[in-house]
Amino acid sequence: MSRSILVVPANKVDGESSIAFQDQLAVEEPLEIRLGSKTVSVTMRTPGHDTELAAGFLFTEGILRGPGEVENCQSSKNAVTVTLKPGVEIDLERLERHFYMTSSCGVCGKASIEALRMRECPILPREAPAVSPNVIHRLPRILREDQPVFERTGGLHAAGLFDAEGKLLVIREDVGRHNAVDKVIGAEFLASRTPLLDRLLVVSGRASFELTQKALMAGIPILAAVGAPSSLAVETAQRFNLTLLGFVRDGRFNIYSGPQRIQ
Amino acid sequence: MSRSILVVPANKVDGESSIAFQDQLAVEEPLEIRLGSKTVSVTMRTPGHDTELAAGFLFTEGILRGPGEVENCQSSKNAVTVTLKPGVEIDLERLERHFYMTSSCGVCGKASIEALRMRECPILPREAPAVSPNVIHRLPRILREDQPVFERTGGLHAAGLFDAEGKLLVIREDVGRHNAVDKVIGAEFLASRTPLLDRLLVVSGRASFELTQKALMAGIPILAAVGAPSSLAVETAQRFNLTLLGFVRDGRFNIYSGPQRIQ
Repeated sequence: MSRSILVVPANKVDGESSIAFQDQLAVEEPLEIRLGSKTVSVTMRTPGHDTELAAGFLFTEGILRGPGEVENCQSSKNAVTVTLKPGVEIDLERLERHFYMTSSCGVCGKASIEALRMRECPILPREAPAVSPNVIHRLPRILREDQPVFERTGGLHAAGLFDAEGKLLVIREDVGRHNAVDKVIGAEFLASRTPLLDRLLVVSGRASFELTQKALMAGIPILAAVGAPSSLAVETAQRFNLTLLGFVRDGRFNIYSGPQRIQ
Repeated sequence: MSRSILVVPANKVDGESSIAFQDQLAVEEPLEIRLGSKTVSVTMRTPGHDTELAAGFLFTEGILRGPGEVENCQSSKNAVTVTLKPGVEIDLERLERHFYMTSSCGVCGKASIEALRMRECPILPREAPAVSPNVIHRLPRILREDQPVFERTGGLHAAGLFDAEGKLLVIREDVGRHNAVDKVIGAEFLASRTPLLDRLLVVSGRASFELTQKALMAGIPILAAVGAPSSLAVETAQRFNLTLLGFVRDGRFNIYSGPQRIQ
């Protein structure tokens, strides 16, 4: 994990006294994501699992449809180049529109949700195997215990993928919450395991529109956040039948959408 | 604050029991920022203080130089149009480059810092009136007490501008931490009070590269974060002589850069 942590000299002030010490910081560096020769995005991220981040980003933004489209992913210091298989065509106009829509999504919440639909975001089936509340209660502790860099830096978000019995399958950390989610989904995408129809995604912070979008694009039916959801996250979850849980901590949680998946 | 909060029905699960209740969510909606007829950005934000958000964004990204360039700002439901005074020219190529640089900032941390320099980000004077640690210790509590929407939703970041005696001057909340900072700086920019050379900026979460950039563009010499800083935030602060404080809470804080401004 050494690329994820930078040690710097700092001063610790307690009351009015001060002592010098060595602190461990979460590393933040830009990553350029290229599709062939075209730069699709540059994101501020914590180095590590860059290939998964790039693949997850391209998949959850609706640019890549499946791992079979990818010839290979080449990672250099702060760039990942995804090369497509011969004959695979990516609609570049769609790519441009994606930019307008992601940072943009039109000019109201309803338009944002509509933009997801246009990106062929799947609507989850209403019926789904239900998960016990006791499984949900355990998730944040498991996530936290498996978060090595956060323990040392206090500076990272985590995202974890669990099965319906609460077993942790993949965990990733990043200074950007959306990046941690892209790394988790990218790992599964590259292993040809998407859509993740019987999985739970747990995030250490709040649930925004962007995170519900990423869960939905990957077909994940349950998104559980340790923090609060936003209004648009809840509206999006309801529209696409995603089960959205918030404030999952200390033996309690709130169900904002899709209660039929909680026993 | 009614545009900032949405009330939704939800279920609260405690152990294995569940009850229905009405929860208050922080509103997340897209805002389109236009310069004349050109869409410069669309950001997911919490409605309220939209004009300040647009002005602050355009200023901290290096697009607007001073409030004298602005003829007026017109706000509609989810858009703000900033009209320039006759004769004021914005270099559109610079605007495009800005996009490449912000989401991008080149392909390494050093390039990100270089990009700031090219945007004529001011280097703060080394000498500065020093602030007492006791003033710093008080800041998070004052910020939290003045954060009405967070108390009800748990879903918002806050940014506050303080004077050197620890008096709160401006506070703004938003689902996006960068938006809260843009709203604070935009309020001061529109009131012709930038650069803010004798002010402290306090943020409720972590300090990223982006937040140090915004503080620097506004000439703010001290940035205090309740959470952890990233590596690139610290490197940027050191390069431009910004005092960067992290983990400011419970009577303690860490100084990562610019200790000469703390008594």
